[in-house]
Amino acid sequence: MCPSREVLEHVTSRWGALTLAALSSEPARFGELRRCVDGISEKMLSQTLKGLEADGLVDRRVQSTLPPHVDYALTPAGEKVAAAVQALIVSLYDVMPDVMAVREGA
Amino acid sequence: MCPSREVLEHVTSRWGALTLAALSSEPARFGELRRCVDGISEKMLSQTLKGLEADGLVDRRVQSTLPPHVDYALTPAGEKVAAAVQALIVSLYDVMPDVMAVREGA
Repeated sequence: MCPSREVLEHVTSRWGALTLAALSSEPARFGELRRCVDGISEKMLSQTLKGLEADGLVDRRVQSTLPPHVDYALTPAGEKVAAAVQALIVSLYDVMPDVMAVREGA
Repeated sequence: MCPSREVLEHVTSRWGALTLAALSSEPARFGELRRCVDGISEKMLSQTLKGLEADGLVDRRVQSTLPPHVDYALTPAGEKVAAAVQALIVSLYDVMPDVMAVREGA
């Protein structure tokens, strides 16, 4: 598979898009992200973050405090992609009334 | 699951994004779409189109010629979403050099 296709799949995976969107406003800790991305399990969030980190879209930052403070932030590349993901989500909210009308057979 | 989350999953499903993107330029027949969305199986394309049609993003148009000519076109709602998907894909191409550098450990 061509690499950009792979990255597209990470970004648009079940949870990838929502995780990127959740990181758009500011860096967050694991627990914060879990509360923010409604319905995601610990395991899936961990896998999603690893995939986005391997693509260089998310940066896992360990601060040498005691206990160590870990948070996740968008990289500059991640910010570009997250902005596009946000715009996609906004476009979906925009068309939801039409979608609901079709689904309800209106 | 809230309905907009469901639509997000259709749009960003493994093949949903690529199918919407393929329909962006003009309506297409099933066979044209299959050739255009590299790697998609007949079954997956059929399922993907059904999902997008049920959301009111894609319109299946049967023309009463002999044999009947069927094609798929974006609805106005589908055009908005497809434009956002296209922008997301463009943003991914934009960051691919960074992604590849991270992946190669550069």
